[in-house]
Amino acid sequence: MKIGVFDSGVGGLTVLAELRKALPEASFVYFGDTANVPYGTKSAEKIESLCRSAAQRISKMGIDALVVACNTASSLALGAIQEELGALPVFGVVEPGVGAALQIQVEGPILVLATRATVRSHAYLYRFQERMKELGRDSPALLELACPLLVPLIEEGWIDHSVLHLTLNEYLGAYAARFSSGIAVLGCTHFPWIQAAVEKALPGWVVVNSAQTVAQEVSLKLVSAHLPDERSGEVEWFFSDAPAVPDFARQWIEDTKRR
Amino acid sequence: MKIGVFDSGVGGLTVLAELRKALPEASFVYFGDTANVPYGTKSAEKIESLCRSAAQRISKMGIDALVVACNTASSLALGAIQEELGALPVFGVVEPGVGAALQIQVEGPILVLATRATVRSHAYLYRFQERMKELGRDSPALLELACPLLVPLIEEGWIDHSVLHLTLNEYLGAYAARFSSGIAVLGCTHFPWIQAAVEKALPGWVVVNSAQTVAQEVSLKLVSAHLPDERSGEVEWFFSDAPAVPDFARQWIEDTKRR
Repeated sequence: MKIGVFDSGVGGLTVLAELRKALPEASFVYFGDTANVPYGTKSAEKIESLCRSAAQRISKMGIDALVVACNTASSLALGAIQEELGALPVFGVVEPGVGAALQIQVEGPILVLATRATVRSHAYLYRFQERMKELGRDSPALLELACPLLVPLIEEGWIDHSVLHLTLNEYLGAYAARFSSGIAVLGCTHFPWIQAAVEKALPGWVVVNSAQTVAQEVSLKLVSAHLPDERSGEVEWFFSDAPAVPDFARQWIEDTKRR
Repeated sequence: MKIGVFDSGVGGLTVLAELRKALPEASFVYFGDTANVPYGTKSAEKIESLCRSAAQRISKMGIDALVVACNTASSLALGAIQEELGALPVFGVVEPGVGAALQIQVEGPILVLATRATVRSHAYLYRFQERMKELGRDSPALLELACPLLVPLIEEGWIDHSVLHLTLNEYLGAYAARFSSGIAVLGCTHFPWIQAAVEKALPGWVVVNSAQTVAQEVSLKLVSAHLPDERSGEVEWFFSDAPAVPDFARQWIEDTKRR
């Protein structure tokens, strides 16, 4: 079984890492659209058009399923990607993030940290409301918060840096001061790189990393197709602008190849 | 006379503002490639390809001259843009920045603050060396410093914010500590928005804003064509992804329209 993993850039590597743990018998193709990163600051129309082009390219890579490992693409273009890929199973990252947050029982609001485009789409809000209705539960307070500086900070490699901590306090300080507990959903696949810093900025809160949940969901749904691949564990890499891959991600990919 | 102003996004607005002051009798067309911003993190090949496409689009806008108000495009693709535009005068922003820095007589190094792509191209270093040779002078110490977080911080509107000051101290603190004077060249058209903060981070240094120098150069070279335009002072706006224009720039454009 060969699984495609698609992201606007290198954020999807956090999802790929969890997928490889959950599905050690699969092989993977990673496609990062680094020529067009970031998606999160672009319009809905532009994001859909980029996702359609990417899906057409990915459809020729001989995959058995696709994981859209990008919250912006999952929020704004999952339907468009599914259209391009016909009957192939396509998984997004919003649904599993919502599911994971709803399994946690703590007092306080649910806060989704995401890009501007994801927040504007309200994909998390709508999916939460649908799920609460299905479950017959009252909706908890759900807040969607755009944090556009976090991706550039991560790409600069400042993942345990005073500037990152100050930025997180700026974005999250008011919530930390008002609520002694709550659930923070990492609604961008870059953000697991800074999970520890987010936990520090929100003491008493539970932080949900949807990368793990996505991997579990994909693994469960593809269980019948769990046939060992002759190239098990292998990853093929494609980037639409390879020289633009940031150094920290390049290092991560090299380490993966050696494993 | 109608002058085109081209930038990867909204940074070129700082150049447009100076051009309108220097050439009040001209009309302008601004083209911001917001569908592909930022250029500064992309590869040289991708930047050249984007600039050629933009130039082809701009060539149909009936302009008499083009100002490439983007340091990354000026550093990596000025020749390609000139090729696409044939005999039309094309002005970049690197040359005027270099010229302005060389007119300042202070002790200490010249520090060019720019994007990753501009730094990798060494366009400033090469142009400085050429100019010093032409002038028969010894080269001062020239350092090119990539500051990739500054554009996202400016686009977030954090232009007088503790996170911006801390980031500038991180990038510039070592130079401020070592040299009590020097010249800092704002080698990215976004950076004039934060000129005051850069001056604060480099006490005793002279900060060169090349937007003014570019406008002076364009004004001088086009002096023979200084015929009043029936649409003097008017600006037409084109963005390749209009909804992606950040709020602070949208406000600036609205203010410009009312003037």
